[in-house]
Amino acid sequence: MNKAINLSDLEVGYDIPASIGMDEADISTPSLVLDLDALERNIKKMGDWAKEHGMRHRVHGKMHKSVDVALLQESLGGSCGVCCQKVSEAEVFARGGIKDVLVSNQVRQPEKIDRLARLPKLGARTICCVDDLANVADLSEAAVRHGTQIECLVEIDCGAGRCGVTTTPAVVEIAKAIDAAEGLKFAGIQAYQGAMQHMDSYEDRKAKIALAVAQVKDAVDTLKADGIECDIVGGGGTGSYYFEGTSGVYNELQCGSYAFMDADYGRILDKDGNRIDQGEWENALFILTSVMSHAKADKAIVDAGLKAQSVDSGLPTIFGRTDVQYVKCSDEHGVVADPNGVLKVNDKLKLVPGHCDPTCNVHDWYVGVRNGKVETLWPVSARGKAY
Amino acid sequence: MNKAINLSDLEVGYDIPASIGMDEADISTPSLVLDLDALERNIKKMGDWAKEHGMRHRVHGKMHKSVDVALLQESLGGSCGVCCQKVSEAEVFARGGIKDVLVSNQVRQPEKIDRLARLPKLGARTICCVDDLANVADLSEAAVRHGTQIECLVEIDCGAGRCGVTTTPAVVEIAKAIDAAEGLKFAGIQAYQGAMQHMDSYEDRKAKIALAVAQVKDAVDTLKADGIECDIVGGGGTGSYYFEGTSGVYNELQCGSYAFMDADYGRILDKDGNRIDQGEWENALFILTSVMSHAKADKAIVDAGLKAQSVDSGLPTIFGRTDVQYVKCSDEHGVVADPNGVLKVNDKLKLVPGHCDPTCNVHDWYVGVRNGKVETLWPVSARGKAY
Repeated sequence: MNKAINLSDLEVGYDIPASIGMDEADISTPSLVLDLDALERNIKKMGDWAKEHGMRHRVHGKMHKSVDVALLQESLGGSCGVCCQKVSEAEVFARGGIKDVLVSNQVRQPEKIDRLARLPKLGARTICCVDDLANVADLSEAAVRHGTQIECLVEIDCGAGRCGVTTTPAVVEIAKAIDAAEGLKFAGIQAYQGAMQHMDSYEDRKAKIALAVAQVKDAVDTLKADGIECDIVGGGGTGSYYFEGTSGVYNELQCGSYAFMDADYGRILDKDGNRIDQGEWENALFILTSVMSHAKADKAIVDAGLKAQSVDSGLPTIFGRTDVQYVKCSDEHGVVADPNGVLKVNDKLKLVPGHCDPTCNVHDWYVGVRNGKVETLWPVSARGKAY
Repeated sequence: MNKAINLSDLEVGYDIPASIGMDEADISTPSLVLDLDALERNIKKMGDWAKEHGMRHRVHGKMHKSVDVALLQESLGGSCGVCCQKVSEAEVFARGGIKDVLVSNQVRQPEKIDRLARLPKLGARTICCVDDLANVADLSEAAVRHGTQIECLVEIDCGAGRCGVTTTPAVVEIAKAIDAAEGLKFAGIQAYQGAMQHMDSYEDRKAKIALAVAQVKDAVDTLKADGIECDIVGGGGTGSYYFEGTSGVYNELQCGSYAFMDADYGRILDKDGNRIDQGEWENALFILTSVMSHAKADKAIVDAGLKAQSVDSGLPTIFGRTDVQYVKCSDEHGVVADPNGVLKVNDKLKLVPGHCDPTCNVHDWYVGVRNGKVETLWPVSARGKAY
């Protein structure tokens, strides 16, 4: 029998797509597979860059939602902590041993504020973002109630067009309120320019970040003149870290996708005009999929559809293949154009997902592979942690 | 304190978004909310239609992935069983008490075939689809090994463009092979025209199904002339069931989305030119979301982004509101245009997801609501069951 038989434990009723030592070819599909060598090289490379440039790197855990990956980023990449977007994610990382956790987002619902205020009891420095004076009193009340401290960053909207204030006077007003509030500590500025990360042109991205840096610098300088220091000035992603990291204004990077890469990020160009997945970063994350039907000569149907990935940023590409192309996606199927009929049923393909973050969020496991063998299985620890 | 405090059990480490009896307004967001009255009316209506037209209704469990909803469809809608797309889903439904389970898809990987062959031991009639002669021997070998019976439908591609054979001779060849194989039983035809379900025009859909029905009729008649009867001729979805259900060829419907509705299906038109979510079916499924930031006067940021839904079929709509519009989606945020500034932080909105199936697949719970109160919590039992 096939070696994968140990995953069919009907009595237990959950699915583990692989077992340690198994050949990569025997992994049940569709599954997320990590190339551990590539992952480690990506993590080390970004860690080295940050260190060389005197930057802290607070890795973005919302991308992978994995305690194991976050701990690897700490041990191998020297990260100073984690950021994430939800209180429920922060709880997972704190329980997993991460000692410095930023919810790089607003926390407004009463029960979430309560949970946030309890997070320091798990042993983690707890930081969140604020963009509204009215939030300060609620956060303070919860911290006092639990006898804890919540550190707060004022979020500046420097181009992402989501949360965050847009003027320096608004930053200063909120910072002062935080500074004066019992149970809270003003910790600095959150300023992530999300909208430019996926612009193809290096020069276009550079121009957008220059505006963001000027906006953030004005706020930081004004606060300083008022006697308020920023411990953290955080932001920067995979498409921009070299700008924030050499700005003299930011001191913490918040990169996520560099570790795994995806098809959408891979398409953007570095300063020499090369795709960033052709030198700067390696594809470490794949959706392993199998051909399940080839009833028509020129197309193969694979078992990874919309429930194995998110296609919000485009369809996946097929790693290492130019002869076949993933052309269509439905709930449980992908259509692969196979004009020369080279694929057979049960052939495996490695898909590079269009967008790694929401793709990881639909899986329960990362299967870590090295030299063609399964080396480790890591749960997607914060999968579905949306609260 | 807020009544929702019981969901913040840091020690247990999982998230239950609501508790029984809670006000709808206190549900943690983003969460899937079911309007139980609307759900029950949808289920009863389709069940009554099928009964009146002498059709069996094998409800599509891949849409909701919920044992509880499937059991409700059985008790209230008279469904004859469930279809689903993955063996791991079938296991969940069989364990949950569904006695007749069709995997309306090909099963090709050896470990999945092995699991399928063990499914009858859970007490469920087990059926799968076949579109390749080479699959028959593998299925037979597994059924014999486990001393079970797998029933097989030959899948006809009648327009979906995915799995399935396209000619009557191919159907007959595979049907005869199944009929002759130990451990297998030929059970009929699977023929779902997926591609036309979302065409807006009733007449366009009717024309497509007419072609499908003719193709299926030719196969069924040819088999009959060869002495091979079809117990099941299955297909039909929310956008077409009245065509297959009055065709005289099909005898089982396989509708899924009618029970919950979504924005993409809602836009298609019935025979009188009315949207099907304005009379034929009710929106029963919502993503409850909260405003988390309103730092700009004309837009609100809500907490349901790409990790709370799939946007493959378009952005969600906001139920019951014309004054605000969900206009943009990122991983954890939605941007809601609020030109008149009517929304406040922590206001709740009910989103109708663009596409219900992959949206349900990213959540762990359905929160069932009636008269503004939480009446039940149902796990998304087969969430993530992709194998």
